[in-house]
Amino acid sequence: MKKGRLIVISGPSGVGKGTVVKAVLASNPKTWLSVSATTRPMRPGETDGVQYRFISRERFEQMIDAGQFLEYACYVDNYYGSPLEPIERKLADGFDVLLEIEVQGGLQIMEKRPDAISIFLIAPSFAELAARLRGRGDTDGAVIPKRLETARREYGVAPQYDYIVVNDRLEDAVSDVLAILRSESLRAGNQLEKLKEADSDALSPDE
Amino acid sequence: MKKGRLIVISGPSGVGKGTVVKAVLASNPKTWLSVSATTRPMRPGETDGVQYRFISRERFEQMIDAGQFLEYACYVDNYYGSPLEPIERKLADGFDVLLEIEVQGGLQIMEKRPDAISIFLIAPSFAELAARLRGRGDTDGAVIPKRLETARREYGVAPQYDYIVVNDRLEDAVSDVLAILRSESLRAGNQLEKLKEADSDALSPDE
Repeated sequence: MKKGRLIVISGPSGVGKGTVVKAVLASNPKTWLSVSATTRPMRPGETDGVQYRFISRERFEQMIDAGQFLEYACYVDNYYGSPLEPIERKLADGFDVLLEIEVQGGLQIMEKRPDAISIFLIAPSFAELAARLRGRGDTDGAVIPKRLETARREYGVAPQYDYIVVNDRLEDAVSDVLAILRSESLRAGNQLEKLKEADSDALSPDE
Repeated sequence: MKKGRLIVISGPSGVGKGTVVKAVLASNPKTWLSVSATTRPMRPGETDGVQYRFISRERFEQMIDAGQFLEYACYVDNYYGSPLEPIERKLADGFDVLLEIEVQGGLQIMEKRPDAISIFLIAPSFAELAARLRGRGDTDGAVIPKRLETARREYGVAPQYDYIVVNDRLEDAVSDVLAILRSESLRAGNQLEKLKEADSDALSPDE
């Protein structure tokens, strides 16, 4: 079976990564979203294995030592990381694996996996990004200038991603991501692999 | 104004290049089809400047000497080539320029213009390719084995193209090509250029 592809969707807080990712998952049955592990405490309304896999600091550090993360980082004294094993299993089963991930984690993955498809999501303007952050229930107004400053810094690495998608109208951004996935599957190398696996005579007829 | 892109659509005789190209042109107003020049005589029903620009051998050879072709080749004692000047003009006007071209010409363009987007069209199988050639009014049955032999040889260079599209159902092949064009426009380098030209503050807010 042809292995799936690793797809990194990144971008600053507030650009709408979660919404775009949900819509892409809904329209692509052979796509799976990687669930990050974290050491931060579970919040009311969260379920282990849905928003995050909640694990102890000790377990997280064991997994770091054993090389069991595709990427990980430490924020505000808590670890966040993408466990490698479920990702490898889903890729082997032919699923495209989506990673909705912050910008530095995305860079780590691109370094380790140059074949990953990386997409950087941006808001149509800084004013719009500020408005989105203000409109979110989960963001304290006082931290918004800090979030914008972080976004400005993170935008600096956008050119290192394969693609940049502007999340203005959600349906356009989703169509953009789907066009990228479709187009990437048509790359000559991918197509030759697929034709070979299907034992197709399209390119190499029997003598 | 952002320059257009050069798009090479190639593949053996009978895969349906013309039909796919027509449909892509119809759904993309900012796309222009390059018209080849040839020294072969005009046939009944043809119009100068539509199927080909019909020019004399003398004029063609002058243009070769002046470097006025993006690519050219000689078949059955007639020249065929893509005049550079109208292509450059349309690209500068922001049009994507499609070249529906035979396989060797496509390779010449990829060598001269590494930024060209190259798409190789194939039939779903050799049996289907043979059926399509037989179904065409313009192909003498006796030459079909020769056409298939040429196709087999031409398929050997498919891996040198950026993308391979299987023309099974026309609407799928057209959607594939449109997804490639959309996806290519989202590449980080293209997007940064577009944002800069639009003087957007999306990535670099005013201080």
